[in-house]
Amino acid sequence: MSTTDRQLRVGMVGYAFMGAAHSQAWRTVNRVYDLPARARMALICGRDAGKVADAADRLGWEAYTTDWRDLIASDGIDVVDICTPGDSHAEIAIAALAAGKHVLCEKPLANTVAEARSMAAAAATAQAAGVRSMCGFNYRRVPAVAMMRQLVADGRLGVIRHVRATYLQDWIVDPQFPLVWRLQRDRAGSGALGDIGAHIIDLTQYVTGRRITGVSAVTETFVRERPLPAGSSGLAATVDGGAANGSAVDGGGADGHHPATGAVTVDDAAVFVARLDGGVLATYEASRFATGRKNALRVEINGSLGTVAFDLERLNELEFYDASRPAAEQGFSRILVTEGEHPYMSAWWPPGHLIGYEHSFTHQMRDFVEAVATGVDPAPSFADGLQVQLVLDAVTRSAELGSSWTEVEPALATVAA
Amino acid sequence: MSTTDRQLRVGMVGYAFMGAAHSQAWRTVNRVYDLPARARMALICGRDAGKVADAADRLGWEAYTTDWRDLIASDGIDVVDICTPGDSHAEIAIAALAAGKHVLCEKPLANTVAEARSMAAAAATAQAAGVRSMCGFNYRRVPAVAMMRQLVADGRLGVIRHVRATYLQDWIVDPQFPLVWRLQRDRAGSGALGDIGAHIIDLTQYVTGRRITGVSAVTETFVRERPLPAGSSGLAATVDGGAANGSAVDGGGADGHHPATGAVTVDDAAVFVARLDGGVLATYEASRFATGRKNALRVEINGSLGTVAFDLERLNELEFYDASRPAAEQGFSRILVTEGEHPYMSAWWPPGHLIGYEHSFTHQMRDFVEAVATGVDPAPSFADGLQVQLVLDAVTRSAELGSSWTEVEPALATVAA
Amino acid sequence: MSTTDRQLRVGMVGYAFMGAAHSQAWRTVNRVYDLPARARMALICGRDAGKVADAADRLGWEAYTTDWRDLIASDGIDVVDICTPGDSHAEIAIAALAAGKHVLCEKPLANTVAEARSMAAAAATAQAAGVRSMCGFNYRRVPAVAMMRQLVADGRLGVIRHVRATYLQDWIVDPQFPLVWRLQRDRAGSGALGDIGAHIIDLTQYVTGRRITGVSAVTETFVRERPLPAGSSGLAATVDGGAANGSAVDGGGADGHHPATGAVTVDDAAVFVARLDGGVLATYEASRFATGRKNALRVEINGSLGTVAFDLERLNELEFYDASRPAAEQGFSRILVTEGEHPYMSAWWPPGHLIGYEHSFTHQMRDFVEAVATGVDPAPSFADGLQVQLVLDAVTRSAELGSSWTEVEPALATVAA
Amino acid sequence: MSTTDRQLRVGMVGYAFMGAAHSQAWRTVNRVYDLPARARMALICGRDAGKVADAADRLGWEAYTTDWRDLIASDGIDVVDICTPGDSHAEIAIAALAAGKHVLCEKPLANTVAEARSMAAAAATAQAAGVRSMCGFNYRRVPAVAMMRQLVADGRLGVIRHVRATYLQDWIVDPQFPLVWRLQRDRAGSGALGDIGAHIIDLTQYVTGRRITGVSAVTETFVRERPLPAGSSGLAATVDGGAANGSAVDGGGADGHHPATGAVTVDDAAVFVARLDGGVLATYEASRFATGRKNALRVEINGSLGTVAFDLERLNELEFYDASRPAAEQGFSRILVTEGEHPYMSAWWPPGHLIGYEHSFTHQMRDFVEAVATGVDPAPSFADGLQVQLVLDAVTRSAELGSSWTEVEPALATVAA
Repeated sequence: MSTTDRQLRVGMVGYAFMGAAHSQAWRTVNRVYDLPARARMALICGRDAGKVADAADRLGWEAYTTDWRDLIASDGIDVVDICTPGDSHAEIAIAALAAGKHVLCEKPLANTVAEARSMAAAAATAQAAGVRSMCGFNYRRVPAVAMMRQLVADGRLGVIRHVRATYLQDWIVDPQFPLVWRLQRDRAGSGALGDIGAHIIDLTQYVTGRRITGVSAVTETFVRERPLPAGSSGLAATVDGGAANGSAVDGGGADGHHPATGAVTVDDAAVFVARLDGGVLATYEASRFATGRKNALRVEINGSLGTVAFDLERLNELEFYDASRPAAEQGFSRILVTEGEHPYMSAWWPPGHLIGYEHSFTHQMRDFVEAVATGVDPAPSFADGLQVQLVLDAVTRSAELGSSWTEVEPALATVAA
Repeated sequence: MSTTDRQLRVGMVGYAFMGAAHSQAWRTVNRVYDLPARARMALICGRDAGKVADAADRLGWEAYTTDWRDLIASDGIDVVDICTPGDSHAEIAIAALAAGKHVLCEKPLANTVAEARSMAAAAATAQAAGVRSMCGFNYRRVPAVAMMRQLVADGRLGVIRHVRATYLQDWIVDPQFPLVWRLQRDRAGSGALGDIGAHIIDLTQYVTGRRITGVSAVTETFVRERPLPAGSSGLAATVDGGAANGSAVDGGGADGHHPATGAVTVDDAAVFVARLDGGVLATYEASRFATGRKNALRVEINGSLGTVAFDLERLNELEFYDASRPAAEQGFSRILVTEGEHPYMSAWWPPGHLIGYEHSFTHQMRDFVEAVATGVDPAPSFADGLQVQLVLDAVTRSAELGSSWTEVEPALATVAA
Repeated sequence: MSTTDRQLRVGMVGYAFMGAAHSQAWRTVNRVYDLPARARMALICGRDAGKVADAADRLGWEAYTTDWRDLIASDGIDVVDICTPGDSHAEIAIAALAAGKHVLCEKPLANTVAEARSMAAAAATAQAAGVRSMCGFNYRRVPAVAMMRQLVADGRLGVIRHVRATYLQDWIVDPQFPLVWRLQRDRAGSGALGDIGAHIIDLTQYVTGRRITGVSAVTETFVRERPLPAGSSGLAATVDGGAANGSAVDGGGADGHHPATGAVTVDDAAVFVARLDGGVLATYEASRFATGRKNALRVEINGSLGTVAFDLERLNELEFYDASRPAAEQGFSRILVTEGEHPYMSAWWPPGHLIGYEHSFTHQMRDFVEAVATGVDPAPSFADGLQVQLVLDAVTRSAELGSSWTEVEPALATVAA
Repeated sequence: MSTTDRQLRVGMVGYAFMGAAHSQAWRTVNRVYDLPARARMALICGRDAGKVADAADRLGWEAYTTDWRDLIASDGIDVVDICTPGDSHAEIAIAALAAGKHVLCEKPLANTVAEARSMAAAAATAQAAGVRSMCGFNYRRVPAVAMMRQLVADGRLGVIRHVRATYLQDWIVDPQFPLVWRLQRDRAGSGALGDIGAHIIDLTQYVTGRRITGVSAVTETFVRERPLPAGSSGLAATVDGGAANGSAVDGGGADGHHPATGAVTVDDAAVFVARLDGGVLATYEASRFATGRKNALRVEINGSLGTVAFDLERLNELEFYDASRPAAEQGFSRILVTEGEHPYMSAWWPPGHLIGYEHSFTHQMRDFVEAVATGVDPAPSFADGLQVQLVLDAVTRSAELGSSWTEVEPALATVAA
């Protein structure tokens, strides 16, 4: 931190799960990395005054407000960090860019293609004025993922043949788990598809350097009616009658009271076959009904010269099969991605000392701060976020049309990344 | 072996990879299990007199013949074991059943639905006369697979939500690997789909007790032209210019001679999304282009109460997640399926002493001999084999029709299992 | 952080690897946990004014000093956190306790039994005046380790029979790796034994609730002469001629200059057999010469009813074998220790989202702050640190006496934990 | 089998667990490998006429006898295969060699050093007359183990620093498991030490090409009194009151009858630190009390250039860490040792198709038959078996002498391998 007095004053909107993760990253990024600017946690925004005051105090923000428009209008803010549900991304981001603020927006970029397209257009306009924008696909910054991309880019996998990607969770297997906002289309846009499917779409396109061109999809909602929620935190939540997170509850309770229920309006699971440009055949699966799989983002990429495999539940490891080695010695190497030679790792602990989930956000903030401070565009751009949205849209349309093959609509040339 | 003098005299057609595996099983089955009949390796059949004589001597068959019709006509044969490529299954099996021989036929049952339908009809007719038939999906007899079925049948997984099945190999990644019979539609029927995809179709239906009702599929042939083969053994083969199994060869050789090439007429990979009855959502992938995956048949089944996961490259292990355990203790248990309590295992070695690939055939022969000797129908039946063929057919049709959703045609009621 | 205005003003001595890890924990602890006091990073101490000023700025300390005596004398400090090499622990800690400061001292407690004994005595005296002390065996606070202890305490393992503990690293395999302070007896006390062996001694005694009573040991220094260091950072270092961390260097360089060398005066590896009270048979190994093992602290504990196994390179996982389950279902369960039900985890991310190495320090600070603020003694105490030192001493003596069985000297009753 | 009419007529003594394993290997060896002689299963010997007749029939032996002296005296026998408990090895083997029979003797070679020395002397005498002898350390013939040896021999591990070997089982954890012959010193010689410890002693010396020169040891008998057995099979057994294999039994039963008990006269577990020539530091542990570990022979060898790790519960895999690879790509490669390039594997199935425990015996018979038929000495020799016995003896003596360092007595020069 000693190399600069330049500051980037951050204003963050939202303070739930993503807000806490971003705060940890903002607090840490300049303590670990030497950067051309210091992030200052200037202002946090939430609708409930009491709760946002508590959040500011706990998470380490200097001030708080209850109106995001104030945050955007403030002269004391250089960067707007959007951590709200997807239905408010477009409005906040477009306004922030118009106000000349650099924007970091959580994924998925938006809930609809139309919104994402507006955002990408706004980002393109802002870019001309030196205003930067980034979509928060944080898993690109897991060192093992960055290393996969490098191996592909260096030609170590040869001609890519297959992509195999799953993102499996199990937090709503219990039919009594309540109807939180992530299960409502108007708030979340889609279910497993946009929440976790978006991650594997972005990640595999990033690693391979190729775009999904068409899909054939099926989506499913296994449990179509759920009790209304009383409260939630992270991915856990309670119903009126008590806690419901991975364990069955009797919604009725001792007094025979049954909680009110509502319709689940998003997918519980989405599976699709895809083609990427360059002749790659791929399968994708996102589900919240994979019992025992807590956060199992798994990706395998097979090329003519090698294979890489990654599992987010073992995020410090990368498996690499190098078919150019002598036949008797070929095997999947479990690389512990904790060496100084590995992406992002020289600033952390000695080899063999693990990092966690939150570090992907710290790495994201590092790259974002560096890009903004040096006047270059960070990646993934809003155009990249739009492209993922177009894939999500193709998946949804294919599923509605009896799984028939559906081309991914191209993003406009003017906003292509 | 001391409990009976009853014999089942076996005549086997074919002596390549499958013939060797079956021979090992026939030699072993009565040495390990107490059975109501003894299998006698009476006769082996192959077209090349010299080679089949060698095979008889090496593999332990009492006699040989070069004409399968002689084998079927022989009074000295009770069981016909068909280990030839798929294009000859129907003719041999139907003739054998007509001659009153019990038949064990390697999978896939046939190369076409029409053939499979004829075979299933012949089996139904023969059954009325007490003649038994079985399709050789040997992986059902891997102890861990049998245990998965038992867990599902006992309700331990609750409501099944997802099936996730891949069968990945890499033996033709090299474009110079020659055009062996398994790459020719007229001999093999299809490529990865029928060869290894058939295994995961049967296995997942067997384990879940549910049938695939519809599919959406894509198939791909990555390498469409290959050198003609000089010879082959198992899954290895040579071209004119030299060996080609996992390593690049210069087909031309020192003299600039280029081997003649031919068209690959089967799929290299097949991927499909499926639904099974009871609301199960499933993904399947069969590929011979997954570098580093040698024989990676992997299946995971998620239910509302638990999950099982299996990997043929670790066939002595089963992973079981039991969501009914206390929350803090839930995890995937790596069960070493080598205890006397596990299916088929009490006859083998002490706990922790592994078995191999070939044991699945020994177990298959145990069940076949026991069924025939006690006068019951073994499973999987020819009708089961037909049903798998109908799924393969639906996959092929869906792939030809832009991945559109394609229902699996029902087998006739008269041959349903 | 909203629940209290009470502060604990921390002064930290040392700012290298351990200082950075402790700083990350002090910065984070009140952001994640609700505690009865807030840690304030008041003062940091180091001998080099320029470097400590930089460290204060980077790591987030309010002020710095170059004399630890000033830090101890300061009225503005409540807690002294000692992160220096072992040779200075005793002097600083005893002075701090005498000055009425609560003390957190990194492990090993001291370089000699005599020093450790003085420190434990000082801690006992201070304790009577309400001054708290703690020895920093941070791995006790890895959630999976805390869970192991709970399983043992709950009787889930039955009668403990075996402990099997290794702590393997490989950062000095290269004979050209320079003679850093950790390889010098006067600074470090011992080599692998005290640095990493101390961790597995403490951890296994903590988890089992039993003390090592006797040992038979061998120690080894494979490379007895090394180049003198030019600089170091974490566990990496350079020699005059260039970098040397895992790769061979030509110490001479292009000009034929050979760096000066010095004698390695500590062990590279220490192995010993031990007995713990209650009839437990144990093996321990600490080595810096285990090529490929970066930070492989592995512990397995076998009891009559079950087994637990832990690997620090997969610190979010615990393997638990429960022999009370049905025979056919017994297996090692891989528990992902990321549930809200697991120790320390409810404050972090949703299930399946990993934590890293540094979190063990945050958890340590949580327990330390809570203990100090509520007026109870934190664990491990200095008496516990002394007891580990007595085991280290027994190991050293046994190794010097031809591995003969050597009893661990008891700590004085007055300082027993 | 077509290449020769030469026969080796085998007579086997014993028909329990080892007899069954050897029979499977004798039945299979010429079916899989082309060898210069055919093994003929001519004669089996056991004391109980009824049982040995059954065994002959089941296991495939042409004839049986109840007196091993008849077997040795027979003109129809070329090879004597000794599968009895260790107390009878010396008498049978020495007589067989004197009668000019080639001998394959199960490990450990004998129960005492004196017996082993006599056997090695007899083997040396017989060798001069062209009579061959071999000690049955079958795990040398696991392909992954043979590959480890090759890697070491090729210098791929550099200077060997550490050996870490455990052989863990759990079949007598239950105190009610009965007092079978393996728990009686007069029959078995020692307990875990000679039964499974002998395997890891031989295996690590074989792989490294180095001999253990000294040890410091502790042995333990956790359960000193056990019920007398009613019957046993493999490693399972029953007491008067019922089955006892991994599950607690009430020895008394409903009628209050308590089974008679006897003293366990062997070790349950043996642990020792060792040095091998060339400066290698090693740890060994053999135990039958490691709950959940069924047949966990695990070996890791660290050298200056690499590491290999092996686990018999995953015997088709070898982990190899090659420190000569680029720093960012170093990792433990899981090599599936099923390629045609791997030792013994070209004769089996295609890559990725596993072999099991019994195959190590088939490979052993292959090497034995080839050596005998071509007139060379097979390995391991009786002298090698003696050397292992000398290590076992040093372990026992060290344990009796307070773990003091104990040199391994050299074998006589005349019988050195």
